[in-house]
Amino acid sequence: MRYIVGIDVGGTNIVVGTVAEDGSEVLGVVAEPTFVEQGPDAVVARIVKLARASMAQVPGKQVAGVGIGSPGPLDTKSGVVLLTPNLGWVNMPLRDRVAGALGLAATLDNDANCAIFGEWWLGAARGSDHVVGLTVGTGIGGGIVLGGAIYHGASDIAGEIGHMTIDSTGRLCKCGNYGCLEAYASGPAIAARAVEGITAGADTTLPQYVGGDLSKITAQVVYEAAHDDDAYALEVVRETAKLLGAGVANIINIFNPQVVVICGGVTLAGDTLFVPLRSEVKRRAFKPAVDVCRILPGALPGTAGVVGAAAVFMQRTWGKV
Amino acid sequence: MRYIVGIDVGGTNIVVGTVAEDGSEVLGVVAEPTFVEQGPDAVVARIVKLARASMAQVPGKQVAGVGIGSPGPLDTKSGVVLLTPNLGWVNMPLRDRVAGALGLAATLDNDANCAIFGEWWLGAARGSDHVVGLTVGTGIGGGIVLGGAIYHGASDIAGEIGHMTIDSTGRLCKCGNYGCLEAYASGPAIAARAVEGITAGADTTLPQYVGGDLSKITAQVVYEAAHDDDAYALEVVRETAKLLGAGVANIINIFNPQVVVICGGVTLAGDTLFVPLRSEVKRRAFKPAVDVCRILPGALPGTAGVVGAAAVFMQRTWGKV
Repeated sequence: MRYIVGIDVGGTNIVVGTVAEDGSEVLGVVAEPTFVEQGPDAVVARIVKLARASMAQVPGKQVAGVGIGSPGPLDTKSGVVLLTPNLGWVNMPLRDRVAGALGLAATLDNDANCAIFGEWWLGAARGSDHVVGLTVGTGIGGGIVLGGAIYHGASDIAGEIGHMTIDSTGRLCKCGNYGCLEAYASGPAIAARAVEGITAGADTTLPQYVGGDLSKITAQVVYEAAHDDDAYALEVVRETAKLLGAGVANIINIFNPQVVVICGGVTLAGDTLFVPLRSEVKRRAFKPAVDVCRILPGALPGTAGVVGAAAVFMQRTWGKV
Repeated sequence: MRYIVGIDVGGTNIVVGTVAEDGSEVLGVVAEPTFVEQGPDAVVARIVKLARASMAQVPGKQVAGVGIGSPGPLDTKSGVVLLTPNLGWVNMPLRDRVAGALGLAATLDNDANCAIFGEWWLGAARGSDHVVGLTVGTGIGGGIVLGGAIYHGASDIAGEIGHMTIDSTGRLCKCGNYGCLEAYASGPAIAARAVEGITAGADTTLPQYVGGDLSKITAQVVYEAAHDDDAYALEVVRETAKLLGAGVANIINIFNPQVVVICGGVTLAGDTLFVPLRSEVKRRAFKPAVDVCRILPGALPGTAGVVGAAAVFMQRTWGKV
């Protein structure tokens, strides 16, 4: 049995694990904050340190290589991260720097692609031929897995589903466009919408969760208050469900997938989110496409990106997962 | 050299042609109104009559089969049109009825899929690996051609790009959803937007094109007035360009294609449409994806559907185009 080190580089955290080639186990999962502000050399050193720490937890296992998932845009062929607003990298040869330091072969792919590929291999979308997924966190990433392979498009940019316009004259997104799904339903956007309502006088217990400091309201605080039956927090979650539902309906009308998988912190809201989300999709999308599609939370919270990065290595190196 | 009869069944017209397997010629192109109101038997009889008329114009050619494109949703495997609001058909075994009457093998696919497949085979998107297209007419259809094959999704519904929400609280669409691209930028929607402005007091020569009868304003009348430099008609076309631009930007962020091809009557507006459309896409979509993508009008006006339906027959029957 061979093992692959999967590395998930995020704007906030780096997560690393060592994955068996048959998917039977994910061992030595370790994580640390990315500390982007320390610059790319420090981040690469931390990635390498974590990879070594993960492998040290599985002594005697044969490690065949390393799969890396990183925010993009990036070039999967050359292994170079072209430009990441979140990490501040430009033309960073991440794959070869990590491979060189570890003395192992490596591959590089987009972090959201890896997460959805992981969900296809071992998670919520296991074995489905037509899978589209969203990773809802600081931003909204997307991944498209068709016929058991990540769909990359002409130049590795495909899958930017979070930057689908759902309201052409709507909120300004960090990408410069107006009305992107991400501008409404990412973690920070959910928090911003909640705070806007409070500032406008909404009757809610939300401020009590953050000692009255509205700048500390995060999406997770909103889910917590919703869980405690705060009516306004529930309304914010339901509104999020409607907005995500418009995006998922678009995905269903365009891709006619068997599974839409939603990963990331937003799944913490559970049925409070998924029940109205599925209703909204039913209202918006074509019935025969809705009927064949399951809308599911990711089944590998925290490790989908690690598992998927390892699967990318396997597929690109051995031609199969 | 073998020939294939390509049949494009529309809500308004049926177009038929006989296509050489090497794509070198499209012969015997004939067309008639569909006359949907006469019922399915009459429409099938007219399709068969037109197919015979087309073949009669190419005596001595070996006709290998028939490719049919029809509005959907439909089942490509069984050759059955499941339900077409425009044609009023339910569970109509169109493929086998036409095949039986002509004594030839036949295939069935969605009309917009066929049009974009035709543009991929012999038209504006020739030879590109990642192609997404729109057919803008009475409705807005879509087709996705990846790696030289139509992308059908899990149950032949994929590609309903016209029913992508671009304004989640926007105009009601015939499909029941709010804010679909089709509700803004189909031919009838363009005409409706123009008339709304006139009713609201817009200063325009448009009524003069239709003898003062606003109900006679069509999208084509708007393009004609725009061509004659009517400022209001130009504004309606530019607004259409912005709306289509939002849709095309979504396509580019999601699919990262080499070509987006736009077919149908709307291309009559020419640069008046395409110049602001391309600007809008640049403003909205990711630069590295925009940089690799050409946005082109269809190169086979009137016959893309016929050519593509024939190509579907070839691919499904012989495994190649």
